[in-house]
Amino acid sequence: VQRVKRPDDLYAVIPAGGSGTRLWPLSRQHHPKFLLPLGGTDRSLLQATVDRLVPLVPAERIYVVTGTPHAAAVARQLPDVPEDNILVEPSPRDSTAAIALATGVIERRAPGAIVGSFAADHVIADPEAFRATVRVAVDAARAGRLMTIGISPTRPETGYGYLECSAGFEPLRAQEVLTFREKPPAQLATQYVGSGRYLWNASMFVWRARTFLDELAGRRPDLATPIAQIAAAWDSADQQVVLDTVWPSVAKVAVDYAVMEPAAADGRVGTVPGDFGWSDIGDFETIAEVVGQAEEGATIVNGSAASWVGIDSDGLVVVPAGDRLVATLDVHDVIIVDTPDAVLICRRDRAQDVKLLTAQVPARYT
Amino acid sequence: VQRVKRPDDLYAVIPAGGSGTRLWPLSRQHHPKFLLPLGGTDRSLLQATVDRLVPLVPAERIYVVTGTPHAAAVARQLPDVPEDNILVEPSPRDSTAAIALATGVIERRAPGAIVGSFAADHVIADPEAFRATVRVAVDAARAGRLMTIGISPTRPETGYGYLECSAGFEPLRAQEVLTFREKPPAQLATQYVGSGRYLWNASMFVWRARTFLDELAGRRPDLATPIAQIAAAWDSADQQVVLDTVWPSVAKVAVDYAVMEPAAADGRVGTVPGDFGWSDIGDFETIAEVVGQAEEGATIVNGSAASWVGIDSDGLVVVPAGDRLVATLDVHDVIIVDTPDAVLICRRDRAQDVKLLTAQVPARYT
Repeated sequence: VQRVKRPDDLYAVIPAGGSGTRLWPLSRQHHPKFLLPLGGTDRSLLQATVDRLVPLVPAERIYVVTGTPHAAAVARQLPDVPEDNILVEPSPRDSTAAIALATGVIERRAPGAIVGSFAADHVIADPEAFRATVRVAVDAARAGRLMTIGISPTRPETGYGYLECSAGFEPLRAQEVLTFREKPPAQLATQYVGSGRYLWNASMFVWRARTFLDELAGRRPDLATPIAQIAAAWDSADQQVVLDTVWPSVAKVAVDYAVMEPAAADGRVGTVPGDFGWSDIGDFETIAEVVGQAEEGATIVNGSAASWVGIDSDGLVVVPAGDRLVATLDVHDVIIVDTPDAVLICRRDRAQDVKLLTAQVPARYT
Repeated sequence: VQRVKRPDDLYAVIPAGGSGTRLWPLSRQHHPKFLLPLGGTDRSLLQATVDRLVPLVPAERIYVVTGTPHAAAVARQLPDVPEDNILVEPSPRDSTAAIALATGVIERRAPGAIVGSFAADHVIADPEAFRATVRVAVDAARAGRLMTIGISPTRPETGYGYLECSAGFEPLRAQEVLTFREKPPAQLATQYVGSGRYLWNASMFVWRARTFLDELAGRRPDLATPIAQIAAAWDSADQQVVLDTVWPSVAKVAVDYAVMEPAAADGRVGTVPGDFGWSDIGDFETIAEVVGQAEEGATIVNGSAASWVGIDSDGLVVVPAGDRLVATLDVHDVIIVDTPDAVLICRRDRAQDVKLLTAQVPARYT
């Protein structure tokens, strides 16, 4: 059911990068989390991202920016997204470069476009409410704002960005962002959450392509200039040569730092508070929260209940991705991830530290 | 170095049966523990049993009694044991039948023989002391006693047999057994261990073949008669026919109950206390005791240290039999057994309950 009208000039960009080291050994350098079905269905996180966008943005206006190791998998997972919309970065250059490249190409192909950028690895419980929220952001973006989607924070998470707002939040009503603070230290995050005036930045952005490119040019010409060069050559005979020559010089910086923090300080950023069951699939613990406890004593992720047999075991998160039986006896509150070449056993409250292990295991397992 | 003289009339019987459900998923119905290298070397428990016997009993006088699923593996693991000495039971009939069959065949082939029966799944730290102990038992057996080897108990184990003796124990000195009690309840076992007058029965027996067969005939003709029939036909053209016809009727009973308990009550049983580092490889916890902690934080059994990477993890027993990496994060005091089709995680103090799991897992994993 298509409840929200599709705006004719709206394009979507999905930056699909990063390997997700906190999801090792399920995610690997060559098998990143956005390609995995971690949302409780058989669709990958990337496919689910496209699925929930399509009622708002047809597949022919959806762009994916990804790395060389994942281009083929992305292309096969998303057969409805045109080949020309799958932009392959020669090397990882963080989110500003990825988003700017796609935005530049879109503006070149469709001048005046509105662009929404959506992370490839989130889970959203209520896609209808999500689309309604984006629709409001699109209207605000037309007026020249750099729009974000704001999520009511539930814990002093230090891995997200925080949006300071002026007053009480109301879903589906755009409002100004006073400050944008990316990844605050724990003490500050706690203060933010306690104040009731901050929202999490959901890592979704909506803006006119032209607005964003101009902001970038004004604030970070070191990024804007090479990206503009590449975008100008895109679809031409020079595309490959210019990309090869220019791309390596592009600075690696997250869009939150390069654009959003300074633009918010200048009163250029807005947000639409969203209430649509948003989850960032950062580690196995957040996956367990999304999937929920389906089986007595264990949350089975990405596998069938028959993959696990337990006696006197509870509080488990079992990821039977190795097509083998996982058996537990008097084991509690651990995450068990079984893959064809490695098995992880991890205390649930240490889920976010799995990335530490990836630094210690031999390279062939990463 | 052959320190103990080989008695010319000594034969060894190794009953190699049972699958070792407490060692699942490492041991399986078709891959029982005695075929696995669990003693900290690359020799299987069965091979190690033969290795430590050979200085006392040459391979041509060593007999193995095993089941149909394991005959081929036994034959290949023990190339020096003659084919005719590998007796294959058509179906499992417990230890009395296995030992009686081999004893009957040996007595037929070598009248007057002394027979020692040795479990296939024990680990012995000091083989020299072991052989010296057996040598003393052989001399006592010549006088017509049913000899056992006694081990000083270290805990009120309810899975073993207990030998009540009259006085203080002295290694290498045979003495009378007043009572033989197989698998006492916990309270009784505790009392036995506290009294200081009991030894564990090491499940090794030494006797004249004739003495044992006569004891069996007197006490359990229902077992002795069919076994005698089969033994009489052994090496003849009728061997297979008689085995097929008679074997299924043989009662299933452990030799401890069928012969040793009643014979001890009649003053027919003796023991030689042994002090040679005896371990019954019953479960993963006893394996860990035998192998010892080789790596910081984990005892690696049956694999290399490189198979495990841990952060903030200790007290682990890791069995990397699946040729994969085992990674742990903040996990303590568990056993992790990784095999090609199943992975077990078990609290160390529940090691003996692994058999409960085997009753619950699908048959293809057992």
